[in-house]
Amino acid sequence: MSLVKERRKTRQISVGSVKVGSKSPVSVQSMTNTRTQDVQATIKQILALEKAGCEIVRVAVPDMEAALAIEKIKQDITIPIIADIHFDYRLAIASAKAGVNALRINPGNIGEKKKIKAVVDCAKEHKISIRVGVNAGSLEKNIEKRLGTTAQAMVESALKNIKILEDLDFHDIKVSLKASDVERTVKAYRLLASQTDVPFHVGVTEAGGLYAGITKSAIGIGMLLTEGLGDTMRVSLTRDPVEEIRTGYEILRALGIRSRGPELISCPTCGRCRIDLFKIARETEKALLDHSSKIKVAIMGCVVNGPGEAKEADIGIAGGDGKGILFKKGKVIRKIDQDKLVEQLLMEIENIEIEKSGEN
Amino acid sequence: MSLVKERRKTRQISVGSVKVGSKSPVSVQSMTNTRTQDVQATIKQILALEKAGCEIVRVAVPDMEAALAIEKIKQDITIPIIADIHFDYRLAIASAKAGVNALRINPGNIGEKKKIKAVVDCAKEHKISIRVGVNAGSLEKNIEKRLGTTAQAMVESALKNIKILEDLDFHDIKVSLKASDVERTVKAYRLLASQTDVPFHVGVTEAGGLYAGITKSAIGIGMLLTEGLGDTMRVSLTRDPVEEIRTGYEILRALGIRSRGPELISCPTCGRCRIDLFKIARETEKALLDHSSKIKVAIMGCVVNGPGEAKEADIGIAGGDGKGILFKKGKVIRKIDQDKLVEQLLMEIENIEIEKSGEN
Repeated sequence: MSLVKERRKTRQISVGSVKVGSKSPVSVQSMTNTRTQDVQATIKQILALEKAGCEIVRVAVPDMEAALAIEKIKQDITIPIIADIHFDYRLAIASAKAGVNALRINPGNIGEKKKIKAVVDCAKEHKISIRVGVNAGSLEKNIEKRLGTTAQAMVESALKNIKILEDLDFHDIKVSLKASDVERTVKAYRLLASQTDVPFHVGVTEAGGLYAGITKSAIGIGMLLTEGLGDTMRVSLTRDPVEEIRTGYEILRALGIRSRGPELISCPTCGRCRIDLFKIARETEKALLDHSSKIKVAIMGCVVNGPGEAKEADIGIAGGDGKGILFKKGKVIRKIDQDKLVEQLLMEIENIEIEKSGEN
Repeated sequence: MSLVKERRKTRQISVGSVKVGSKSPVSVQSMTNTRTQDVQATIKQILALEKAGCEIVRVAVPDMEAALAIEKIKQDITIPIIADIHFDYRLAIASAKAGVNALRINPGNIGEKKKIKAVVDCAKEHKISIRVGVNAGSLEKNIEKRLGTTAQAMVESALKNIKILEDLDFHDIKVSLKASDVERTVKAYRLLASQTDVPFHVGVTEAGGLYAGITKSAIGIGMLLTEGLGDTMRVSLTRDPVEEIRTGYEILRALGIRSRGPELISCPTCGRCRIDLFKIARETEKALLDHSSKIKVAIMGCVVNGPGEAKEADIGIAGGDGKGILFKKGKVIRKIDQDKLVEQLLMEIENIEIEKSGEN
């Protein structure tokens, strides 16, 4: 039995070619941090994100130039693109006309009802979906005054914004409820779960740098996914967005929900290790980033747990004194000098990948 | 209401000056990867670990020279030290005589009963505790043959090893049940939880490098801690062990269990950001590593969520065009040029720390 409960049943929506909802795999998204108006820089970053496995990308649209840039950006990228807009309904309409696949805009922040209706009509016409993106740091003043920046306040804001859209007969909605801490984030999604069938975009916002950011995202998104909550996710890191995608897939893999590329098991080393395992692990990891096969590779410092772990891996090494022992499915193949280890390990991995692809 | 359930009730044991069990805080440990026989290198690494907040350190004892080194290592360090021993009971006895605070040894692997009894008598005499460390990669052959490398097999191995010690009237035991995947690890601890009151050392073993390692540890240890399981922890990373300690505290902080040092909230930036926020966040994070105050610092790219998040922080900045706006408890203090931002932010942080320490 898996650790992960059955997915919460949701309506199904589309972000371009990607379906979001409980009938579809949990998708992994990110956001560019280039100036959207700088078309070439933005395309370059989106292509790097695509290569890393990003399935939906969001760009900031702070002005009309950024909205118009979307048309050119779309010509060179494959994945669907979402325009991130605050307040200005004209930017939403311009983004839709420029071919954007979805909007992230909170209708409650747009202003007059006729402006909201203009955005919704435009979204209907262009068949694009809308994410209601509630953030504990930017709640409506009247809600915050009454409820503070609590999970309850976030849920109330979400329900209010969803209702505005549904009252206009617009239903292609997903919703996010993000706080910069795990507790409020998890509580907010739990609270909203039974009150709507809108799909959930999950994430912890402003999670921070490498250690705090990965840790908070893994715990927060991880808890939600184990409870069946979450249809698409964004890991937020103060880092290159490609690292958000890597972390997103690591979360999905750790929970057995989805996997992408080889899995590396590697030991922390200890006083027994007589080989530069960190370097070997780093180089192997880097070389395997582009691989799409789902093989399991064990990189172990010594023979205490090495052969045992290697048994469960397709291939592995265990360090000796300046040498490594190469294992395949737990069977010793040969000894290899430390300076040839990565090269030979990668060669053997490629052989296994060729064998495996032949099996299909 | 917190996300974390009440701690599972356990017996209380000691690892030197550190108590381990449900009446004590969840402690954070690591393991050296220097040669234990190299006394100076090992002391240097342990002092770096102590500085990072490590509360218990383990060293590999593969031979008699390593066991004897413990006596010298202990002279220069403050935190308790555990000897990691496989099979050889003489190394356990020598480590105990050298002043080690605990042993990690599985009695079932020692061999003849009189050797086991010799280790247990020695542990009693020196008042040191023993960790039974079950690892899915190195289970007893007869158990693995029957049950495979499953969570059930790990639990059976743990119960067998605990029984050997308890039959010799030895009770100062903690236990770990580690696999290289989250699912087996979590299931094993859950299964054992109701079958013994021995404290749990929790961790996912051979978790891997930065992304996989932090993700698997955060999800696995995080899930266990939310269920009240876990009295001491070790994050396993194929990285400098100091990073294991940082990740350990990030896990505890994310769940609101313990905190250590300032908390950094920082945004991932987007196309709106007109300032080099990554550099500012990195430099601030690095400068704050040594700080022990528990203030909250927000580093935000723009004014969309900046002021909102800054409101909940003791201090924060939000980026403008080549400038940053400095906030204190959500109130704008002043604008600062980008190249002076880190310096002035750190100065203000130190002022707050001085104010706060005056309050106590």
